[in-house]
Amino acid sequence: MIGVFDSGIGGLTVLKELMRRLPGFRFLYFGDTARTPYGTKSPETIIRYAIEDTEFLLRRGAQVIVVACHSASSVATDTLRDRFREVPIFEVVTPSVEKALALTRRKVIGVIGTRATIESRIYERLFRERDPGVRVYGRACPLLVPLVEEGWLKKPETRMIVKKCLLPLKMRGIDTLVLGCTHYPILKKLIAAKAGRRVKLVDPAEEVAERVQAFVEGKHFSSLAKDGEPLIFVSDLTPAFEEVARLFLGRRVKLLKAEDAPV
Amino acid sequence: MIGVFDSGIGGLTVLKELMRRLPGFRFLYFGDTARTPYGTKSPETIIRYAIEDTEFLLRRGAQVIVVACHSASSVATDTLRDRFREVPIFEVVTPSVEKALALTRRKVIGVIGTRATIESRIYERLFRERDPGVRVYGRACPLLVPLVEEGWLKKPETRMIVKKCLLPLKMRGIDTLVLGCTHYPILKKLIAAKAGRRVKLVDPAEEVAERVQAFVEGKHFSSLAKDGEPLIFVSDLTPAFEEVARLFLGRRVKLLKAEDAPV
Repeated sequence: MIGVFDSGIGGLTVLKELMRRLPGFRFLYFGDTARTPYGTKSPETIIRYAIEDTEFLLRRGAQVIVVACHSASSVATDTLRDRFREVPIFEVVTPSVEKALALTRRKVIGVIGTRATIESRIYERLFRERDPGVRVYGRACPLLVPLVEEGWLKKPETRMIVKKCLLPLKMRGIDTLVLGCTHYPILKKLIAAKAGRRVKLVDPAEEVAERVQAFVEGKHFSSLAKDGEPLIFVSDLTPAFEEVARLFLGRRVKLLKAEDAPV
Repeated sequence: MIGVFDSGIGGLTVLKELMRRLPGFRFLYFGDTARTPYGTKSPETIIRYAIEDTEFLLRRGAQVIVVACHSASSVATDTLRDRFREVPIFEVVTPSVEKALALTRRKVIGVIGTRATIESRIYERLFRERDPGVRVYGRACPLLVPLVEEGWLKKPETRMIVKKCLLPLKMRGIDTLVLGCTHYPILKKLIAAKAGRRVKLVDPAEEVAERVQAFVEGKHFSSLAKDGEPLIFVSDLTPAFEEVARLFLGRRVKLLKAEDAPV
């Protein structure tokens, strides 16, 4: 079983892409809605939550872990790999970095994300390790998550805020932009419009799903459970979370309140 | 010692007002920044957190509890009073209701708050218990919290969002508006401007502080500790939280990470 976790509902964009590429595989999702969001919190706290989320998925039978949350991917991946050595752990940052390097022509890349993600400077580090000549500009856009969660996808205020968020990156002359938060692909059209035609967007959901697909189809995990609907657990359940889940997954979905969720 | 808790930093507006009215009293504050915000979460989860927050303050010696968080006040007060019978527990909803009833002339009152607060319908219930003839209109304005936390107090987007939030209440002809979230007093000037000159605002921080003052000065708690700086604990600490704390308290303040905070 492939386990996916996120700070909340946003990671369903990653689950959706995984299900599209790996139909028939069995998925287990955990959204930590009782403690969401992670992106405003400290690395120490995010690492603790990521360990607990991983333990939850493993307890429920996950054999592969996908960290769908960018904030957790940015600050907790090393700790998770160190702590759960036998478990293959995928995260959303590295695949986007490699895709962006493949796309950029002028080697000027922008990254937007939560405060935790941008302040970790993980993208700068990973880009420079692979190509010291690349210029990377990160920008925290904390207001986009609540705007998406309110469903304000086409409101004038959202357009203005996206434009304001991207302006400093445009002025740096980026030609590639990484959408470094699960919520941003929901605003992909608007972000593309405000970034300008020449800027290519990298959607991490697609990139990580491609990696997971290559791995599980590479006979590594022929024993993985097939068939069955995904099990989608959350640590807190409200009508608003169900509404956002529908938005992210593109269809109505049943969220299960996990009584044994980490608290 | 007077213990004050909130889902995060916003409750410092209540602490500030308490300190102004009760100089010399000793205060203990707990902001649950590791799990903030509460206002998007379910009543069940908010009640659990409120119990844990109260236990934290009592463990540290608080003799009086002030629930500064409107979402917790709205859904958890009955449970807290039932569970901690010996402890005087103040909350921010009732004092605002009574103040609004004293202010309104046309008996048409608006309330803005988080989704949890508005959906609890607690204000409607408390208003109608006191005056069945009053008309009450609640409106959830979830975007105002992240806008305040980003420090976007005077941006055009914030003005537009406040205006849009208040429009349905203005159309109902409210003459009194309760600021039903700790963050909103920070936007008081803007809200007053958009609500219109004839609408009177109720700031719950002032109202609850008045109640607490009357209680502790009424010889009920002459044994309360005096002097000393307030102790301000948080369950998670980031530079951004410190920045917001400065905004709310009006001066730089030391936040202490509580190692024994509820998780």
